Amino acid sequence: MVVATQSLEELCINSIRFLAVDAVEKAKSGHPGLPMGAAPMAFVLWDKFMRFNPKNPQWFNRDRFVLSAGHGCMLQYALMYLVGYDSVTLDDIKNFRQWGSRTPGHPENFETPGVEVTTGPLGQGISNGVGLAMAEAHLAAKFNKPDLTLVDHYTYVILGDGCNMEGVSGEACSLAGHLGLGKLIALYDDNHISIDGNTEISFTEDVGKRFEAYGWHVLHVEDGNTDLAAIAKAIEEAKSVTDKPSLIKVTTTIGYGSPNKNNTAGVHGSPLGGDEVMLTRQNLGWNYDPFVVPDDALAHMRKAVERGASLEAEWNKTWAQYKTKYPQEAAELERMLSGKLPEGWDKVLPTYTPEDKAVASRKHSEICLNKLAPVLPELIGGSADLTHSNLTELKGFGDFQKGSYQNRNLRFGVREHGMGAICNGIALHGSGLIPYGATFLVFTDYMRAAIRLSALSRAGVIWVMTHDSIALGEDGPTHQPVETIASLRAIPNLTVIRPADGTETSGAYKVAIENAKNHKPTLLALSRQNLPNLAGSSIEGVAKGAYTVVDCEGTPELILIGTGSEVDLCVKAAEKLTAEGRKVRVVSMPAWDLFEAQDAAYQESVLPKAVKKRLAVEAGVSFGWCRYTGSEGDSISIDRFGASAPGNVCLEKFGFTVENVVAKAKALLG
Amino acid sequence: MVVATQSLEELCINSIRFLAVDAVEKAKSGHPGLPMGAAPMAFVLWDKFMRFNPKNPQWFNRDRFVLSAGHGCMLQYALMYLVGYDSVTLDDIKNFRQWGSRTPGHPENFETPGVEVTTGPLGQGISNGVGLAMAEAHLAAKFNKPDLTLVDHYTYVILGDGCNMEGVSGEACSLAGHLGLGKLIALYDDNHISIDGNTEISFTEDVGKRFEAYGWHVLHVEDGNTDLAAIAKAIEEAKSVTDKPSLIKVTTTIGYGSPNKNNTAGVHGSPLGGDEVMLTRQNLGWNYDPFVVPDDALAHMRKAVERGASLEAEWNKTWAQYKTKYPQEAAELERMLSGKLPEGWDKVLPTYTPEDKAVASRKHSEICLNKLAPVLPELIGGSADLTHSNLTELKGFGDFQKGSYQNRNLRFGVREHGMGAICNGIALHGSGLIPYGATFLVFTDYMRAAIRLSALSRAGVIWVMTHDSIALGEDGPTHQPVETIASLRAIPNLTVIRPADGTETSGAYKVAIENAKNHKPTLLALSRQNLPNLAGSSIEGVAKGAYTVVDCEGTPELILIGTGSEVDLCVKAAEKLTAEGRKVRVVSMPAWDLFEAQDAAYQESVLPKAVKKRLAVEAGVSFGWCRYTGSEGDSISIDRFGASAPGNVCLEKFGFTVENVVAKAKALLG
Repeated sequence: MVVATQSLEELCINSIRFLAVDAVEKAKSGHPGLPMGAAPMAFVLWDKFMRFNPKNPQWFNRDRFVLSAGHGCMLQYALMYLVGYDSVTLDDIKNFRQWGSRTPGHPENFETPGVEVTTGPLGQGISNGVGLAMAEAHLAAKFNKPDLTLVDHYTYVILGDGCNMEGVSGEACSLAGHLGLGKLIALYDDNHISIDGNTEISFTEDVGKRFEAYGWHVLHVEDGNTDLAAIAKAIEEAKSVTDKPSLIKVTTTIGYGSPNKNNTAGVHGSPLGGDEVMLTRQNLGWNYDPFVVPDDALAHMRKAVERGASLEAEWNKTWAQYKTKYPQEAAELERMLSGKLPEGWDKVLPTYTPEDKAVASRKHSEICLNKLAPVLPELIGGSADLTHSNLTELKGFGDFQKGSYQNRNLRFGVREHGMGAICNGIALHGSGLIPYGATFLVFTDYMRAAIRLSALSRAGVIWVMTHDSIALGEDGPTHQPVETIASLRAIPNLTVIRPADGTETSGAYKVAIENAKNHKPTLLALSRQNLPNLAGSSIEGVAKGAYTVVDCEGTPELILIGTGSEVDLCVKAAEKLTAEGRKVRVVSMPAWDLFEAQDAAYQESVLPKAVKKRLAVEAGVSFGWCRYTGSEGDSISIDRFGASAPGNVCLEKFGFTVENVVAKAKALLG
Repeated sequence: MVVATQSLEELCINSIRFLAVDAVEKAKSGHPGLPMGAAPMAFVLWDKFMRFNPKNPQWFNRDRFVLSAGHGCMLQYALMYLVGYDSVTLDDIKNFRQWGSRTPGHPENFETPGVEVTTGPLGQGISNGVGLAMAEAHLAAKFNKPDLTLVDHYTYVILGDGCNMEGVSGEACSLAGHLGLGKLIALYDDNHISIDGNTEISFTEDVGKRFEAYGWHVLHVEDGNTDLAAIAKAIEEAKSVTDKPSLIKVTTTIGYGSPNKNNTAGVHGSPLGGDEVMLTRQNLGWNYDPFVVPDDALAHMRKAVERGASLEAEWNKTWAQYKTKYPQEAAELERMLSGKLPEGWDKVLPTYTPEDKAVASRKHSEICLNKLAPVLPELIGGSADLTHSNLTELKGFGDFQKGSYQNRNLRFGVREHGMGAICNGIALHGSGLIPYGATFLVFTDYMRAAIRLSALSRAGVIWVMTHDSIALGEDGPTHQPVETIASLRAIPNLTVIRPADGTETSGAYKVAIENAKNHKPTLLALSRQNLPNLAGSSIEGVAKGAYTVVDCEGTPELILIGTGSEVDLCVKAAEKLTAEGRKVRVVSMPAWDLFEAQDAAYQESVLPKAVKKRLAVEAGVSFGWCRYTGSEGDSISIDRFGASAPGNVCLEKFGFTVENVVAKAKALLG
């Protein structure tokens, strides 16, 4: 009866609210994040501004939406159901957070078509949003023509206090301000409550002023609970400022409508509970049964389907004209969108012989990147302020800056974590771009959450990590990875490659680029120091993860297994041992996970079970090597932190010498 | 000859500069960071403001100095040599960045007495500084009396553009502003240059305004190259504002004095080179030979020795009075400073029997923390906004806030990385405080750089990590650690403990507290779900890393090895197998590194080499387990990301059931 007094807009907003309330209540799970306060801003955004096609979630020119406060995912699922996405049904909502449903506990792009990125770990979503906006800016600058606008969409983000406390969002938003990403619009759900309670206990900074300091355009909606006109006006204003990203601080009440739990952390961390749900229904005049949406509301929201079809049809017309007028550019974009690589792209990757000069694998990486850049226009990336150490510049392709978004060298500044999340956003833009991000290998620790998310959310990023061992030398143990490669190998769905020389670096890029197109990230561990080119290395070998680079006649007595810079040590040790009449095989093992993916016959051909004397040599911790060395093998490793000294001194002091490999090998041989 | 025209102050500053220039030149190593622009501010700070005793670097009430821009470490080494620290000799300076010298490539507290914390990874130092200032504020609030001020020192930090770009510094500085840490004074070496070149390419935000938004007091010295009076005045002003931390932006020229390389990234990343060194000497009128310090300068700087002795003597007088007037408080502080634990402190740790209620190990952790809090007044810590999930509140000990610094519950906000660096700072304050920091285990990824630094820099922190497996359930794979424990075990010098029940949680805290006093960090991995109390668990067993909790008669046919929540699965599976006549041992292995530290005889007694059928059960990746299961063993693991569903459903779907353990065991037994 009270319903009659609700406007259509209120009906829609309360539909969102109660779908969430009912789903959370049914799931009875902690930390669900009820979107009572955020529903109005989300409704206005989706109803009045967002351009998308529910029936084709991947439509290229759609506005991107990111719920950075991912614990409020029922907000997004409710919206998606109401506007007509096929990926979220009412049954999915009723099965919120259950095994096999498409409504997991945080938004996951790989589970639910229409969800753009994977959020939940706070600060990631807004930072992904910066990447999405950078992808749009790049493609727009590159493909749009004075007479035909092909790429033109906004990236909208809803974020909360938690996102704003996280350093990663500060990094990414500082860069977004620097770059002047005008089509990035973030709505900050300013509800003063985080899990521990009122933000007064730990978060009293002036967020708006901070964003102004970053160079953002900052707006404030004082009553985000009910003032829909103010929300709409703010979004309009944000759109009108085209040279700065916008932050709209929308002050809301968490748990709005719940008479006893509104404005408390209780709504953040647990369901309302049956009685309070009833009271909330009464309080908001909502006398529908659980999961029931009034017809009027559903009909209104579902207009998005027609709107979406017409938006896409209109864009298709532009696209058709574009294909006629600009066939070359159109073909390029079409290929990018198809996920295919250009015919013969990998032919540019060089191979080397032992006669070629020994250079660092970071240098080989630079050569690969610069060979690939002309044939793969989708390659775009850069370093977290170590461009000339990581050697990641695409020469002649300019810096991506405000006013030159068509360029492909990204200047991340000293912002590893932000870089990581931005690269994920670029990859998940879905336009075929292949982003890469670079720093020293040890600083993957700064960005590990983003690397993990690239693996989990299937973002085809290339992580270019240099200075991959104690051999980096003088910078000392703070900069010397020892446990880092092991810790990265432990991440599911991440290919970690540590190439031994120039040819293997080419092999690593072949895998990395193909992985990227298959939505899988790859991490390259590259040397600071020069590495001789090996006689037995090959591009094909890298793709198999491990392969024989030096063999003996018949069954080997001993297998030396090396990765990266240590393969050469193994080869030289094998020469000495062979000269002494020993039968020794050397296996280069640049990528464990690729080797694991080979069939048993191949694995047996490289590491025959019968050969139990095995010595692994890697300038890192021994952790995990037992998998390949077995109970009777050994390893030359460094199970402590490194030290500051020239790289060759470090290697020698820690036992990475031919003599020590020979000695350990002999000890194994008995 | 030009020297004659230099004031004593200029002589001192140029002594710092050229000790650095000469050391860097001799070391010929990359990325040394020449402190040409930062020398004046550092000189003013150390000469006019800093209170320390070079002959007793650990003097308790010293001002703390942190060079957050750690790559400029020659600045600190030069200062330390000049003011008379025994830990940095002229020989050490000549052996900059060489094996065995006390002048490593970045400041390392464990190598060089007088260096407070380990910096180099950018943003850590300023965040450690927040921790140091919090430690001072806490101890001052706790021990100072109206008539006797025992604790009263500043924390001074020099940081650069790189530090300011890092998210971790944003997190820590936002909290410092919230807490109003008036004795934290940061000098921002604003030289517009980072490794990639001018900060214009990626860092154009208004840093001062950002810090104002955090609630800091912000000052600006326009000419930091020569205006010593302005630097001194700014530090005076900073000291006069007691309710806010201060940021003094000191605008400088990188490579000041080098005619051709000043104001370029070239000075950041490499030595000047012989010719340019000569030109710089000429330009600054410095006609001393390399490593020669004019007598006047040395004599002036060395006055710090006398000054320090007298400062300490004066403080000792206060301390003597304090001991007389406040013997109880004095005894407490004295014990804390001694590094000793109170007699019988560990008696408060509870043990349990199977009859005791099954509760989560995070709950047991809460019990331990609250049992320990009254007997260990040095225990101080909190959570990154997950207090009631991590269960880390010290009940009745209040919140550490502006105006209540004597309290012991730290409210970090959603700032995991900042929390990590702050805890390191509190531990390295050297006053005996035992800090702890908490979040979900998976979010160690956000703070891994700080956890690594706790291990490297010997910071006795306790990392309290809860929700330690897929069993956390509904939050889904973004929140479910799978590779996390393995990746943490790989870090040298970090004890990782995953207790199986209440008694083991007590054992974990016993180790963690003792570790802390021995300057070693410990990470606890605790369950969200309830765990039954085992019959065979023990506090002593945890200290040995692994031990038998269920045994059979004679030599076992099979050993089941479990950690944490999976030990109970092993026990129940063993019961079934035993009932079927099998001889099965169950080993609980809460801490790998503690087991590795046992002698061979103990290791053999737990895991006899002859028993080759071994099954490890852990709800995480298999990575590394081969070390204990050997070539003939197996593991029940989860080598993929988890899924959103109730925890018990996740466990079942991924094979963590008694039935599956029994089945896998039988498969091994053949």
